[in-house]
Amino acid sequence: MTQLTPDGLLEVAYQEALRGLAEGGVPIGAALFDGDGVLLGSGHNRRVQSGDPSTHAETDAFRAAGRRRDYRSTIMVTTLSPCWYCSGLVRQFGIGTVIVGESTTFHGGHDWLIEHGVAVTVLQDRRCIDLMTAFIAEQPALWFEDIGVADPSTVE
Amino acid sequence: MTQLTPDGLLEVAYQEALRGLAEGGVPIGAALFDGDGVLLGSGHNRRVQSGDPSTHAETDAFRAAGRRRDYRSTIMVTTLSPCWYCSGLVRQFGIGTVIVGESTTFHGGHDWLIEHGVAVTVLQDRRCIDLMTAFIAEQPALWFEDIGVADPSTVE
Repeated sequence: MTQLTPDGLLEVAYQEALRGLAEGGVPIGAALFDGDGVLLGSGHNRRVQSGDPSTHAETDAFRAAGRRRDYRSTIMVTTLSPCWYCSGLVRQFGIGTVIVGESTTFHGGHDWLIEHGVAVTVLQDRRCIDLMTAFIAEQPALWFEDIGVADPSTVE
Repeated sequence: MTQLTPDGLLEVAYQEALRGLAEGGVPIGAALFDGDGVLLGSGHNRRVQSGDPSTHAETDAFRAAGRRRDYRSTIMVTTLSPCWYCSGLVRQFGIGTVIVGESTTFHGGHDWLIEHGVAVTVLQDRRCIDLMTAFIAEQPALWFEDIGVADPSTVE
């Protein structure tokens, strides 16, 4: 069982992000746990590795966990604030808790999740921030592709 | 090239839904087209077939279309109002147009997409309504699982 602290859970997602980076991919990782801290599934972004734009880290972890009827007590941990796609996943399936590694390099839909009753903790973890900061600086075109920004000049 | 009318585009998604039904799955289909009506990718829900809760019809069509930098001129056609997960996909990737077969058996996030500038057309197509009505009546537990309803007594 993974240590049931936000940082202990984040470690699993962070290791997934590192795996993605080592594969030449977008370094974002995620993991889904049950309420007792048992890992249900983990994964990472596979846009580059599988040529699959639909596999964000959260989607990959959700898929790895297999079919379930009830997500209310589950915890989604992700190294980066979930985009609208992944925030929609959390809302639709009623995942009760989200732990976010950081939201400084990208601010997704986690505020919207809070509005809709999800318990969200944002850690602003230094390692997660450094990982994404370096990636975005090195591969801006890949990053913008991954979040659907067709015209980067429109980004604030 | 597919006939560039809402009904012509819907036909591709509807045939995908029938494929899913024939496979014993949740009968929802989708297709992504470019602005000229060229099919980029199509697919259907694969929860049952692949044991994959992350593959809704829209996700499957989006994946089948492969990597792209710009979705603004694309059209997502789906037999059923997109759930929050699939609506989040549309919003995040900036898909400009959504054609919905029907929203009477399930009302997802298409109003939210309109609020965020997506051009949405809801056809209330009789064949799509009949397909989902029969499916929900025959397999309510599978349907509730697919939309993350852990406690069906809470459904209005």
